[in-house]
Amino acid sequence: MGYTEMMIEGRNAVIEAYRSGKTIDKIFILDGCQDGPVMTIKREAKKHDSLIKFVPKERLDQMSQTGKHQGVIAYAAAYDYAEVDDLLKEADDRGEPPFLLLLDGIEDPHNLGAIIRTAHQAGAHGVIIPKNRAVGLTATVARTSAGALNYIKVAKVTNLSTTIEQLKKRGMWFVCADMDGEIMYRLDLKGAIGLVIGSEGEGVSRLVKEKCDFRAAIPMKGKIDSLNVSVAAGVLAYEIVRQRME
Amino acid sequence: MGYTEMMIEGRNAVIEAYRSGKTIDKIFILDGCQDGPVMTIKREAKKHDSLIKFVPKERLDQMSQTGKHQGVIAYAAAYDYAEVDDLLKEADDRGEPPFLLLLDGIEDPHNLGAIIRTAHQAGAHGVIIPKNRAVGLTATVARTSAGALNYIKVAKVTNLSTTIEQLKKRGMWFVCADMDGEIMYRLDLKGAIGLVIGSEGEGVSRLVKEKCDFRAAIPMKGKIDSLNVSVAAGVLAYEIVRQRME
Repeated sequence: MGYTEMMIEGRNAVIEAYRSGKTIDKIFILDGCQDGPVMTIKREAKKHDSLIKFVPKERLDQMSQTGKHQGVIAYAAAYDYAEVDDLLKEADDRGEPPFLLLLDGIEDPHNLGAIIRTAHQAGAHGVIIPKNRAVGLTATVARTSAGALNYIKVAKVTNLSTTIEQLKKRGMWFVCADMDGEIMYRLDLKGAIGLVIGSEGEGVSRLVKEKCDFRAAIPMKGKIDSLNVSVAAGVLAYEIVRQRME
Repeated sequence: MGYTEMMIEGRNAVIEAYRSGKTIDKIFILDGCQDGPVMTIKREAKKHDSLIKFVPKERLDQMSQTGKHQGVIAYAAAYDYAEVDDLLKEADDRGEPPFLLLLDGIEDPHNLGAIIRTAHQAGAHGVIIPKNRAVGLTATVARTSAGALNYIKVAKVTNLSTTIEQLKKRGMWFVCADMDGEIMYRLDLKGAIGLVIGSEGEGVSRLVKEKCDFRAAIPMKGKIDSLNVSVAAGVLAYEIVRQRME
């Protein structure tokens, strides 16, 4: 469980990792190495903002676990996702009604990290993110979560609407963030609850919104549209905390 | 009032602007120009993360307001700071007890922008920032505030403790964010209030904390230290909103 780093050794393995969309945080390359595959790797590394370090052969030999680094060793983000059932079990283990955060398409890793941090600090039992249309758990997310990613369970699901439907059958209620909803202070947010937060630009998607039992609005007194999404998630999550503490 | 951009034309004026610490967001340089002063400007631009664009002479002539661009036109962030009295007047005009946010040394422009956005949406009458030890109102702050910087008043003061003392004499109460304080739901945060938020790493400084009437804690149920500072500011500001709406 938790966020770790995975070592990838060898030119083809590293090129393959980039091509398959893995997040490579750091890459060590043999100093002075200029051939074709290494140039390809450098290009990919720059494109994907990996931190590149040029090191002597001795250093690579020392780091290598396979002895076959071919002048390249990369560190990729690796996270063991939980299952939705693990999240419910966490609630059960703590003897609390489930409190989950569902993120409908957060795109910015800083926002995702900040929301995971908030979810953990607010006592949520887990976070659910969709497989597509969203950022995954990269090194930036891990760093921005300030360590929370090591403590809170995150599950990745194919279809958020389907997951909500399944969880409703198991007695959970769902509330989504929606500017046109009811002022959050007037809603009853106690009990087994899933808080659904939308994406930065679009908010909660129509299909997901239709599955929710309530729509909660944060009172907005200003002349602009909304709050930053991680601030909004924090304000809503803590309204749930407050009602649970009452 | 509000955030605008200021055009600076000519080599010396632009070099001078960098030296005086102005935030230059964008710089247009005559394509192909390589002489000493222009090289200095390019170096400063890179160091300060200004966006550089190389353009033909016709473009510069067209942009120029003075006709004396000498191959360089820069756009600098410009913000008309308000006075603390303007913030109180804003509250008075709206017929509400003052609600201010005081930021004790926020360093990250994204956090400052998000907090200014939150302050505006939560209906605060203004934000007070210290002159030193903190980020000012740069283009990043303006962008992250999502337009809020054009609507909410921001005052810059030499000494936050002194300002708090002066405002206390005028009937305001001050509450600071403090993990060791009283759980915020148990405090009475109605009335004329100033919410003091500390810096990312250090929290509220000792001198400022001593001036505050209350210390408010957000309940933390996780295994890490704190929330992201802009999330914490949002959660506390909205607890004030909730109590005011009761």
